[in-house]
Amino acid sequence: MGGSLLQALAAAGHRVTGFDADPDTRGAARAAGFAVADSARQAAGGAELVAVAVPLPVLPAVLDELAGHPGLITDVTSVKGPVRAMAGKHGVRRFVGGHPMAGKETSGFSAADPRLFEGCIWVLCLEPHGADFYPEAHGAHLADWLTLAALYTEIGARVVPVTAAEHDRAVAEVSHVPHLLAAALALQLADNPLAGALAAGSFRDGTRVAATRAELIAAMCGGNAVEVGHALDKVIGDLSRLRDLLDAPDPIGALTPVLAGAGNLRRAWPPKPAGEPAELPAEVEALLELGRAGGWVTAVAEDRLSVSGMRTETDRNRS
Amino acid sequence: MGGSLLQALAAAGHRVTGFDADPDTRGAARAAGFAVADSARQAAGGAELVAVAVPLPVLPAVLDELAGHPGLITDVTSVKGPVRAMAGKHGVRRFVGGHPMAGKETSGFSAADPRLFEGCIWVLCLEPHGADFYPEAHGAHLADWLTLAALYTEIGARVVPVTAAEHDRAVAEVSHVPHLLAAALALQLADNPLAGALAAGSFRDGTRVAATRAELIAAMCGGNAVEVGHALDKVIGDLSRLRDLLDAPDPIGALTPVLAGAGNLRRAWPPKPAGEPAELPAEVEALLELGRAGGWVTAVAEDRLSVSGMRTETDRNRS
Repeated sequence: MGGSLLQALAAAGHRVTGFDADPDTRGAARAAGFAVADSARQAAGGAELVAVAVPLPVLPAVLDELAGHPGLITDVTSVKGPVRAMAGKHGVRRFVGGHPMAGKETSGFSAADPRLFEGCIWVLCLEPHGADFYPEAHGAHLADWLTLAALYTEIGARVVPVTAAEHDRAVAEVSHVPHLLAAALALQLADNPLAGALAAGSFRDGTRVAATRAELIAAMCGGNAVEVGHALDKVIGDLSRLRDLLDAPDPIGALTPVLAGAGNLRRAWPPKPAGEPAELPAEVEALLELGRAGGWVTAVAEDRLSVSGMRTETDRNRS
Repeated sequence: MGGSLLQALAAAGHRVTGFDADPDTRGAARAAGFAVADSARQAAGGAELVAVAVPLPVLPAVLDELAGHPGLITDVTSVKGPVRAMAGKHGVRRFVGGHPMAGKETSGFSAADPRLFEGCIWVLCLEPHGADFYPEAHGAHLADWLTLAALYTEIGARVVPVTAAEHDRAVAEVSHVPHLLAAALALQLADNPLAGALAAGSFRDGTRVAATRAELIAAMCGGNAVEVGHALDKVIGDLSRLRDLLDAPDPIGALTPVLAGAGNLRRAWPPKPAGEPAELPAEVEALLELGRAGGWVTAVAEDRLSVSGMRTETDRNRS
């Protein structure tokens, strides 16, 4: 992720300095002609923006190293509330949390791709009531948010403005819980070789992400445990309702309307841009409203007074 | 399915007569040079074997039309216990239930494919304690089973011998319940456009089969309601245990071993043939043991005294 971002920002004409804990990765980046520092602190130097692209468990150490840095700091981890708290605790002065919905199975500088972010959803957190990091200057929080939004839309991302809490709830529902459902389904094969022989396409797709490294799934779900717990409670509730319908006098008739509703939601996904981009004022509440409606920012104007956004199509009646 | 089977059996050198309720399908099959009758009863004629390839709701009417037919009758529906009961009720004299794990999105004779069954798993039901349809001649049940197994292995299928009850339980676990999990996951998008915008690969794969026609999912699950209910109870139980682990003092550490177990099961799937095919006596218990172990029959010897089988690899410790 870090290598891809380095390449994408350099390709867009920005001055970028990289650092990676792995000497081989640093060597490969230098050999490819990029500026590479010998420590995170040195890479940050007097930079206006520092993007920390490390896994969650490594983040505290890197933030410690950057303590007191006067510029804006952002991250790319999949949980935003805990990271926000962590940044405050580690003396970060200006922070906007980010989460690009992009990733590759491969890692290392040779796997980096400057076009990785084209069309990708990139959450940037925006807080409504004066952010913790900007207690006396709410406008500064929005200004920093707009700086990042301009940068990321420039390299092709669709920037979604949401609060950290809204982000953590939504990814629990549609990213973290699906990994737990896949695991529960895979567990049905335990001591059950006949089932393994009869399993086909619905099992294959429903369990695909269960093959992800257990440590990664555990860190993702356990790092967002409260929201994942709530989201899983809701799914278990919906499954229990489906289970009750199986006991109905006419289970087929009872199940059909619920399954039809689920099918409509799935067929309407992924959301599509609805018409032409619209103009939106650069105001916190308007941006958060856009995010809640499933919209995203596609461009930020030079004067930072307006953004372009799209609203997603949410017609759940489409068959 | 019927058209593909007609073509596959004809290509293997058998005399086959087809019938379809749709005159266009009959016309297309005749134009392609196949023998086509004007009714199910006429198609059955003095045939040694009648394969009824119709959806479950249509099956009673077709079985009625075939009542008293002296030859062997089989079907291709996805639930075997209820169909077995239905066949008895409708006066079928010799019956072996079947379920090929093959299917196409398209239908009609033009979509038929004589190679559809190559490598496909085809369940053929075998009952241990004298089958209902053969009260005084248990050997006749096995002989009919072997006839079908020889025919289907000849056109490339891997024939799995299981009881109707074992089949219905296994498909509930790995085929029917996955459709309900996909539906429950899709329902999380209701009134939740932000979640729809942030959903990515895990949501896409986990919900893919939720887009299947609701009537088909409902008929499949509702037609096997008792076993699907038991299997769903088990999955809900496993999800509830995962949910409790999220409340542990160290949720990441608590989740990891369970997720690792699920990942190992998923990575060991699909099962692979273990070594060379083995010989097995043509005995009901030995065949059922093969099926329970996740094995299948690949060939039936001319004299019907032995079958070739494979055992699947079930090493759950493979990482």
